[in-house]
Amino acid sequence: MTSDRGCKVVVMGGGSSYTPEIVEGLIGRAEELAVREVWLVDIPDGREKLEVVGGLARRMVERAGKQFEVKLTLDRREALPDADYVVTQIRVGGIAARIKDERVPLAHGMIGQETTGPGGFAKALRTIPVMLDICRDMEELSPGAWLINFTNPSGIVTEAVTRHTSTKVVGLCNNAINMERWIAREYGVEPEELFIEFVGCNHLLWVNRVFRRGMEVTDDLLGKVEASGEWAPGLIESLRAVPCGYHHYYYQGDEMLAKLQKGAAEGKPTRGEQIIEIEKELFNLYRDPDLAEKPEALSKRGGALYSEAAVRLMSSIHNDRRDIQCVDTTNRGALSDLPAESVVEVSCVIGGDGPRPLTVGPLRPELRGLLQQVKAYEELTIEAAVRGDRQAAVQALVANPLVPSVGAAKAVLDGLLEAHAEYLPQFGGEWTRQARSVAPGRC
Amino acid sequence: MTSDRGCKVVVMGGGSSYTPEIVEGLIGRAEELAVREVWLVDIPDGREKLEVVGGLARRMVERAGKQFEVKLTLDRREALPDADYVVTQIRVGGIAARIKDERVPLAHGMIGQETTGPGGFAKALRTIPVMLDICRDMEELSPGAWLINFTNPSGIVTEAVTRHTSTKVVGLCNNAINMERWIAREYGVEPEELFIEFVGCNHLLWVNRVFRRGMEVTDDLLGKVEASGEWAPGLIESLRAVPCGYHHYYYQGDEMLAKLQKGAAEGKPTRGEQIIEIEKELFNLYRDPDLAEKPEALSKRGGALYSEAAVRLMSSIHNDRRDIQCVDTTNRGALSDLPAESVVEVSCVIGGDGPRPLTVGPLRPELRGLLQQVKAYEELTIEAAVRGDRQAAVQALVANPLVPSVGAAKAVLDGLLEAHAEYLPQFGGEWTRQARSVAPGRC
Amino acid sequence: MTSDRGCKVVVMGGGSSYTPEIVEGLIGRAEELAVREVWLVDIPDGREKLEVVGGLARRMVERAGKQFEVKLTLDRREALPDADYVVTQIRVGGIAARIKDERVPLAHGMIGQETTGPGGFAKALRTIPVMLDICRDMEELSPGAWLINFTNPSGIVTEAVTRHTSTKVVGLCNNAINMERWIAREYGVEPEELFIEFVGCNHLLWVNRVFRRGMEVTDDLLGKVEASGEWAPGLIESLRAVPCGYHHYYYQGDEMLAKLQKGAAEGKPTRGEQIIEIEKELFNLYRDPDLAEKPEALSKRGGALYSEAAVRLMSSIHNDRRDIQCVDTTNRGALSDLPAESVVEVSCVIGGDGPRPLTVGPLRPELRGLLQQVKAYEELTIEAAVRGDRQAAVQALVANPLVPSVGAAKAVLDGLLEAHAEYLPQFGGEWTRQARSVAPGRC
Amino acid sequence: MTSDRGCKVVVMGGGSSYTPEIVEGLIGRAEELAVREVWLVDIPDGREKLEVVGGLARRMVERAGKQFEVKLTLDRREALPDADYVVTQIRVGGIAARIKDERVPLAHGMIGQETTGPGGFAKALRTIPVMLDICRDMEELSPGAWLINFTNPSGIVTEAVTRHTSTKVVGLCNNAINMERWIAREYGVEPEELFIEFVGCNHLLWVNRVFRRGMEVTDDLLGKVEASGEWAPGLIESLRAVPCGYHHYYYQGDEMLAKLQKGAAEGKPTRGEQIIEIEKELFNLYRDPDLAEKPEALSKRGGALYSEAAVRLMSSIHNDRRDIQCVDTTNRGALSDLPAESVVEVSCVIGGDGPRPLTVGPLRPELRGLLQQVKAYEELTIEAAVRGDRQAAVQALVANPLVPSVGAAKAVLDGLLEAHAEYLPQFGGEWTRQARSVAPGRC
Repeated sequence: MTSDRGCKVVVMGGGSSYTPEIVEGLIGRAEELAVREVWLVDIPDGREKLEVVGGLARRMVERAGKQFEVKLTLDRREALPDADYVVTQIRVGGIAARIKDERVPLAHGMIGQETTGPGGFAKALRTIPVMLDICRDMEELSPGAWLINFTNPSGIVTEAVTRHTSTKVVGLCNNAINMERWIAREYGVEPEELFIEFVGCNHLLWVNRVFRRGMEVTDDLLGKVEASGEWAPGLIESLRAVPCGYHHYYYQGDEMLAKLQKGAAEGKPTRGEQIIEIEKELFNLYRDPDLAEKPEALSKRGGALYSEAAVRLMSSIHNDRRDIQCVDTTNRGALSDLPAESVVEVSCVIGGDGPRPLTVGPLRPELRGLLQQVKAYEELTIEAAVRGDRQAAVQALVANPLVPSVGAAKAVLDGLLEAHAEYLPQFGGEWTRQARSVAPGRC
Repeated sequence: MTSDRGCKVVVMGGGSSYTPEIVEGLIGRAEELAVREVWLVDIPDGREKLEVVGGLARRMVERAGKQFEVKLTLDRREALPDADYVVTQIRVGGIAARIKDERVPLAHGMIGQETTGPGGFAKALRTIPVMLDICRDMEELSPGAWLINFTNPSGIVTEAVTRHTSTKVVGLCNNAINMERWIAREYGVEPEELFIEFVGCNHLLWVNRVFRRGMEVTDDLLGKVEASGEWAPGLIESLRAVPCGYHHYYYQGDEMLAKLQKGAAEGKPTRGEQIIEIEKELFNLYRDPDLAEKPEALSKRGGALYSEAAVRLMSSIHNDRRDIQCVDTTNRGALSDLPAESVVEVSCVIGGDGPRPLTVGPLRPELRGLLQQVKAYEELTIEAAVRGDRQAAVQALVANPLVPSVGAAKAVLDGLLEAHAEYLPQFGGEWTRQARSVAPGRC
Repeated sequence: MTSDRGCKVVVMGGGSSYTPEIVEGLIGRAEELAVREVWLVDIPDGREKLEVVGGLARRMVERAGKQFEVKLTLDRREALPDADYVVTQIRVGGIAARIKDERVPLAHGMIGQETTGPGGFAKALRTIPVMLDICRDMEELSPGAWLINFTNPSGIVTEAVTRHTSTKVVGLCNNAINMERWIAREYGVEPEELFIEFVGCNHLLWVNRVFRRGMEVTDDLLGKVEASGEWAPGLIESLRAVPCGYHHYYYQGDEMLAKLQKGAAEGKPTRGEQIIEIEKELFNLYRDPDLAEKPEALSKRGGALYSEAAVRLMSSIHNDRRDIQCVDTTNRGALSDLPAESVVEVSCVIGGDGPRPLTVGPLRPELRGLLQQVKAYEELTIEAAVRGDRQAAVQALVANPLVPSVGAAKAVLDGLLEAHAEYLPQFGGEWTRQARSVAPGRC
Repeated sequence: MTSDRGCKVVVMGGGSSYTPEIVEGLIGRAEELAVREVWLVDIPDGREKLEVVGGLARRMVERAGKQFEVKLTLDRREALPDADYVVTQIRVGGIAARIKDERVPLAHGMIGQETTGPGGFAKALRTIPVMLDICRDMEELSPGAWLINFTNPSGIVTEAVTRHTSTKVVGLCNNAINMERWIAREYGVEPEELFIEFVGCNHLLWVNRVFRRGMEVTDDLLGKVEASGEWAPGLIESLRAVPCGYHHYYYQGDEMLAKLQKGAAEGKPTRGEQIIEIEKELFNLYRDPDLAEKPEALSKRGGALYSEAAVRLMSSIHNDRRDIQCVDTTNRGALSDLPAESVVEVSCVIGGDGPRPLTVGPLRPELRGLLQQVKAYEELTIEAAVRGDRQAAVQALVANPLVPSVGAAKAVLDGLLEAHAEYLPQFGGEWTRQARSVAPGRC
């Protein structure tokens, strides 16, 4: 719920090539959100990109009838006061760091991907300290604001915020909204006519049950998914849930790794390397003073519906809509097999006071074991990131299902800490080797 | 979610004086519910009442444009096939038994009330076996139907059904809807503009938090309630929740008992005795062939908004509306301090597949202790009712906060078993004295 | 596990009339405990009593062969360094305060007893701040020492220590050891030949199951207890557990209150008032320079086997004996229906690292509801005591099964806060009325 | 606790080459166990081995003074009546099946091992139905007997028994006793002078904390283990627990697989194939009518201390000794992150009524995630084994950390079901393809 003066939205990482997407979304719902100001914030190194993107954003808003102001700043503390929503889409270390997240694990024989496996782990180490700094500023300058986090690994970052700050936070991903839209298309209905029981955590999300206008169609959907050939034969009928795309890394990791290794052997660019090219093209378009709308080419960048997910979430909070959306929030017991304080990605009612999970209860072992294993990895990753604890880092990787052994964990950790040293001050010049104490109350 | 042919609603206890209320509700939402048939069912002893009420119901439907049929039967197995909703408002033993539920405990120095304390306990003993019989018939004849239970003690009866049958059941009470309407009036808003976090179990329900158009107003509401003088000074500010009316028996039991005892000493009728007179008057009105609407006098009977609660619930299931209503349903972890299989009364999303509780998490000790104690009482009561287990019955009463001692428990139990012997076949001619085995897996 | 130099034992409240009991116990096990020094500590107001008791203690040790030193001090910080065991038997406000704990509730129509009900509550309010001060000193001066707490209400005080300090603590009571000895006598065996499954919390302790040389004799024991006539007929056979003496207040509170009220009406002294006389007599005996052993008259004081419980506990820790004793310790999940951080009184293995509870699992509702209700009371009492929070205090009393209503709660609270004002600085000259914030993570 | 007539011990799989080990153990403790009769039972196909082993057993007993009878039978129903302990060391399909458990996974690129990974899974599928048949007989013929299960995978088999029968069961393994003895040697103490906090499940067991005469030496032990070079550098210091040998498959699975593959490439025999040779040699020795003691050569067979673990367990139950042993038993909440009904391998007090786990509480994520993942695998394996459910079987393998993908899972499952078809009647001629229903109460 926001103030009567209208919403103030702050976008951290405002110079991102994604920004036209969210600006378009805010324009589309400017009225229902009563948007007053949108601040695009970036770091000094991102000045040029911010100015280019900011220029486009202003032209877009202008053309749409200028319902709100677009402001640019390189000082987030200037932007934060009185903010209602702070959207984070930062990328610590930029695309260059992402490419290392892809290349370093692959060089050690593991999947290199920016959100899962050792790559996602490294991204968490870089990102969490910066996010906690943003939250410290929010605690001081905009304590009532909602933090809407898109920065990956979104669930881990969100849990770090819930465990280490008092900032109100919701984690988001475009995974759930894309699954929802796809199922709606399959059944020829509006998304609102479906109820989807999402369970899991970020990038480990399952559709557990689906209801179409109140009638369960789960079995039918499973048949469609099995028939689609997207998954290894027999997975879907035995799992009895629809995995998200990132589950390919867990269920078919051998094939995924082989594919990545083949690409590397053939000299193909990684996704991060492709994005450098896409971004060049996008920024060239953005610089065009006649461009006053989101260019079609942005669709190549990925992130479909991310803006829709963000703006619809803000709107449901702002308007106390109490519709059901799948977001990352504190478990509280909704998935009773996980700690109450874990961040989970589940179907929630979104009202003026934020998300409230629908109670799911105990999970089947098919979903439970993998989810618990990954949550243990996430918890250890947060410990490693916050305390610069190298031993927690080793154990985080050992716990990660995409890391085959402790030897691999140590090797890739060394590689990642070295590659990203500039962005990992918490690990010190000499890696921290303090004795780890077991958290109180834990055995 | 109901079939395309439209809804078939069966009302058990159709001869009740309340029936014009639910018939009015069904007429009002006949279109959104697509009501096809309404069956009023009663037992042979209730033939005359059923015919009188059924006549009125038919005249009401006729006047409203005859959107659906009203059918009467004394054989529930005739009514059940293909039912979509079965509403239970039965009263085993009738008002005469209720009066004993009031008088017997009072004679033993305890509160005599039909839903709480020893009176509610006795009502549960009489009702549960009959309800389980109805469910057996539903399992056979209308396995897809929802049982919407109003029969008190509503939470205990609902939990007995969830524990001992496969029938889909929701428990209802007009407590939550009346609290909701009252808060809406206080804040000059529509009920839909509020989000109320209800927690507890039936007749032990608290408003824990209230949001008005998304802004929390709990503190303000607590101030209003404290100021209203309804509760002993200091209760509300220390409790930080709004109790339901039945909490008077728990928080101010001494005053409540004194009042009942004074009434008895002065020869005043109990509520049940008053109702006999009210019902006489009502049935005289119902017999009037010119009457074709719910008479104003029915409001004296109590039960305000009960019909609205029932019909709104059916409509949200039928239309997969996914709005939030407070109902009695299986906990699953929503209140993490109670067993997952307990029935709780909490805010739920109501969709085509029934209620899904919003996750609340751990409760404050102010609410937790009393709720846990009462749930233990309820669990023992169900054991006593289903197994005719006199020792479980003693312990149920010992666990009930309105029973001061084991001596009182035994005395009032003897009195109640004797008074209601005719309706308690499970306790045998000679009261069951079998050795109690501890349930497996419990210490 | 204590150091090789032998044990140093510090007794807080060393001037108590009980002290000869524990001195006798330490003499009896001086060898197995390798006792080096015993410090008796008291407050300046207790100087005279300390000197009298200390004199007797020294004569007792002398006669027994002077295996260890007895030292006296009025400054606990002098005694604490290098302590191995700190035994607390303090009584804040002395017997005079106890008498108020008995008289004030009785004047308001409630049971007046020093450990349960409003009396025990008031004792907790006075005691907890002093105990936390002692623990602060222990954290600084003897961080490795075990605190062995006897001060009542023992469970509540112990839980306050676990929740608010880092001191290693075990709570003790002579309830369990007396039940154990009594059962051993009934079966003609040594206590070691029994395994007793104790469950509950302090002064709310049940024997749930009993094994004699490995064969379960629970049913037989229940029969004996039922036959003993100690309990209202039918309680034991329906409960299927053996209650402790304090359960009379819960199961037969009406009779207990009537008895206390009759005593008051007849001008009989309370237990506290009797103790004044007993203590006079005892101290006269203690002053006798020829007395060098515990006088028989001490048995009138109550507390049978308290010394045995304490010394046996210390010995099992010191010698890593890993035998089973029933003590007050952190739950951790042993009773899975209670919070992990609650202090419970259960059968534990006692080894060099202290007590480890035997896992019990979920409890029957017969035991569960009352135990949960009382634990909610205890948790609120600790909040009230630590924060001087009057609203928590009201709710603590409302949650207490021996307080009949919120009106009674408020009245007796006013009476107790006034009567004990001198010992309740945390409640301020003007009673604290700060807004209570709900603990984080709780609804 | 066993009867006064002395113990009757029944050994299922009595023709095993291990049997002289347990016979030696029973002779050694014949007095404290008051052994009356030992029955060696085998299946008709094992007649010859049974006679050979039985002959040796009788000579051993004879030489030791014939404290008890040794009886042989091929009909377990003859042996069971009045049994006190039933020890199961059966091997369904014999060594030939074990070799397939090793070879088939290896042929599919996975670790082939008889207790973990796909090999252990196949062994569970073969074993569980036979074990449940044995339990049905025990329920009928010796309902008071304890089943002491050694048959691997011991934890899974034990959990199948707890979930599907009423037989009293303890699972055993020689892992814990060997770790205990090794630590005792390291510290130059008797095993009884240690307290070891074991946590985990069978073949996934960690030493979490160690106390030597009550003083914690965990850090010191971790240093020793790290220094031993048994584990990949850095594992122990980051894990802060001592893994069991089988953890090599989880923490260093890549190396273990490479080693097995190298062996296979070089034509080396698997462990099972080696055992065929060892057993030949052993049976030749056993046939020697002059041999009347366990031959030294049996030590090559593995299983060190297995007899000691079994006999010490029986003795502690028989004598209600209440010492601490690490066994497989129902969790009940001891490890609060796992379901209460899971079988875990933890430190327990062993008394006349069997094992009672010491409460551990919540686990660190380092241990928790892997343990939860493996328990999910185990639960699915039991479902697959009991119901012949191929889909549960696929998911069990998908959940197993040693199976890299769903493709691998399906391939190895096909291979195993074909290889063992004769011992897997529950999977039918045509593999079961029934729709899987989700267990009630689970999402």
